[in-house]
Amino acid sequence: MRIEESRKDFPITNDLIYLDSAATSLTPIQVVNEMNDYDLRYRANIGRGVHRLSVVATERYKNAHDKIKTFIGGDGGTLAVTKNTTEAIGMVAGGIRWESGDRVVATVLEHHSNFLPWLRLREYGVKIDIVRPDSDGYLNPDSFESVISDKTRLAAITHASNVLGNITPVKEIADICHQHDALLLVDGAQSVPHIPVDVSDIGCDYFSFSGHKMLGPTGTGGLWMRRPDLKPLHIGGGSIESATAENFTAASGEEKYEAGTPPVGGTIGLGRAVDYLNDIGMDTIRRHEERLTGRIIDGLSAIDHVKIVGPYFDERRIGVVSFVMDGMHPHEVAHILDEASAIMVRSGEHCCMPLMQHLGLESGTVRVSTYLYNNPEEVDMLTATIEEISRKVS
Amino acid sequence: MRIEESRKDFPITNDLIYLDSAATSLTPIQVVNEMNDYDLRYRANIGRGVHRLSVVATERYKNAHDKIKTFIGGDGGTLAVTKNTTEAIGMVAGGIRWESGDRVVATVLEHHSNFLPWLRLREYGVKIDIVRPDSDGYLNPDSFESVISDKTRLAAITHASNVLGNITPVKEIADICHQHDALLLVDGAQSVPHIPVDVSDIGCDYFSFSGHKMLGPTGTGGLWMRRPDLKPLHIGGGSIESATAENFTAASGEEKYEAGTPPVGGTIGLGRAVDYLNDIGMDTIRRHEERLTGRIIDGLSAIDHVKIVGPYFDERRIGVVSFVMDGMHPHEVAHILDEASAIMVRSGEHCCMPLMQHLGLESGTVRVSTYLYNNPEEVDMLTATIEEISRKVS
Repeated sequence: MRIEESRKDFPITNDLIYLDSAATSLTPIQVVNEMNDYDLRYRANIGRGVHRLSVVATERYKNAHDKIKTFIGGDGGTLAVTKNTTEAIGMVAGGIRWESGDRVVATVLEHHSNFLPWLRLREYGVKIDIVRPDSDGYLNPDSFESVISDKTRLAAITHASNVLGNITPVKEIADICHQHDALLLVDGAQSVPHIPVDVSDIGCDYFSFSGHKMLGPTGTGGLWMRRPDLKPLHIGGGSIESATAENFTAASGEEKYEAGTPPVGGTIGLGRAVDYLNDIGMDTIRRHEERLTGRIIDGLSAIDHVKIVGPYFDERRIGVVSFVMDGMHPHEVAHILDEASAIMVRSGEHCCMPLMQHLGLESGTVRVSTYLYNNPEEVDMLTATIEEISRKVS
Repeated sequence: MRIEESRKDFPITNDLIYLDSAATSLTPIQVVNEMNDYDLRYRANIGRGVHRLSVVATERYKNAHDKIKTFIGGDGGTLAVTKNTTEAIGMVAGGIRWESGDRVVATVLEHHSNFLPWLRLREYGVKIDIVRPDSDGYLNPDSFESVISDKTRLAAITHASNVLGNITPVKEIADICHQHDALLLVDGAQSVPHIPVDVSDIGCDYFSFSGHKMLGPTGTGGLWMRRPDLKPLHIGGGSIESATAENFTAASGEEKYEAGTPPVGGTIGLGRAVDYLNDIGMDTIRRHEERLTGRIIDGLSAIDHVKIVGPYFDERRIGVVSFVMDGMHPHEVAHILDEASAIMVRSGEHCCMPLMQHLGLESGTVRVSTYLYNNPEEVDMLTATIEEISRKVS
């Protein structure tokens, strides 16, 4: 399928301009239909049932599960379907047997969900080392060299910033980690939907992501593990091999991390989303978004009273562009964009208060984020509306 | 709406006889349409966005959330939407600061998800006291009197058995717990869909349930808390009030327990499921299922080589009936029911291995479970098919 034809699969794009995909993407009708099929045609619980609906549901669930794992290059490891990225990261924070004196490296770029779980570990005597990006948000691998040591148990690093859009040097960081026998968790919530990702090439140990940011439904996400060595947070239906009143044996493999009825319909929907992305091709999506991002940055940088926050370089960024306007609160700008031109953007701190403090932007930013269904005309409408607002400021 | 008219809302009932609602219920088209609306007409992330889609999505999410809480009589407490019951119970097991010597009371009736999390606490020095039901599965409140003491931190009791169908005396157990300052968790996975439930009347401290067993989508469930005193398992997007690079303040109220993007579409769907159940009326559903259950028990008890496992009394049971057949593995019976008459039932251990060992039924049972969309003709077809099978046994 050509990327330009995809727009028709997202009915919301007929009515308004959706530039908030970093918060959650839209979902195409194909994914919705796939989930409807499950609920209306073969709805059943998966696992041990022998009846036909259960057999079909189980097979389609497993197929979808495999597809998602392959999509991130994760065939060599273990994938647990989670309800969101926050749960995936929490499974790492809660699944390692921490010892007092262990150190965790995080960065000021992180989303709260990949920052606060590490801060909270201080109650177990774990120390946190925080790496700060340079002024345009770039994370220099050298700053990791100086902070990662043999005491580092884990580094937890975003693959792409949900505020600044920059792609971080995770491969270089992985190398440094492994020199010190430190584990690496990469938060791929913003990368998997937008750039080709191969977790085995990155060399990370854990990789978290969200289904609802990559055309799938809300309530889905994943944690990929190189080795299934985390203690599972939950235990119960489906996650054990056998049990008595005195003891139990955990299941081996992926079931171990999926206790209880998983989001069966949601996972099958996410599997269909992966097919959709593959049909267009992640390279094509990447190029499309690079063009749109360049157009946004070019357009906005030419407007008075607008300051882009973050890197200008294109090849190391995703389609997330933050900016501020002189004398206006970001919420006010977002509100006018909606009212005047039906443009949906996010505004505020984007769950990144430490980064906002680092940047001296306590009110946050206006954040524009693209996806495959956006087109240059929408970007031009954004730029024209911001220009209009800018004229009223002066 | 009259209950007999509901059948048309569940297209699967046209093609086969679904008697596996204790594993997961079917979902009516109204719920599916409600979720489609979210995905195709106002898809957005909830919380801090100011644009119109985010405002609508947030409002509808909160409405659904409130409806679900009211449905279980939980207005006085806190509801966290979870992905399933297992997660809800795990939030209690992982959210209490256990001390060595604390005791937990559970029963042999429990689903693995309300049993193994307590067994696992033994690694923190917690002791487990196990109450065993009498021969037909009945839990005598007296057996709790003798085991609940001032050392008991928590009792974790199913509200209705997913194998035997008996309703447990949770109000009496709550009284005993409170005499000893013990907390009570009631697992309502099998009760909420089928009988009117009022958590404040029960007097429990925690109450867990599944959305997908009560007409809602998979990937939804809930934990109700009388007081929001559990330590949240996860922390991140949406669950905090403020953060710096050094510290953070957790959100008050329900957000504290819903870190990350929740199943927005799923929760809105579950809210619609609650409307659907209310439209028919839980008392009506209860009476309908009592009639069906009586018919199943009467029918099956008259057949040679069939032994019903569990209580015969009707007023203290839900529409879950387990049975075994002489000389046949439960899976074999389930398989024939599907092949011969397109009847879907569950077979095996039903995630209740300790109960099966207690009952001396290592291969498990055949389990029939009803819901509002079943009718007497379906029950008669079940009975006729089992009779047919029975004739071949002899």
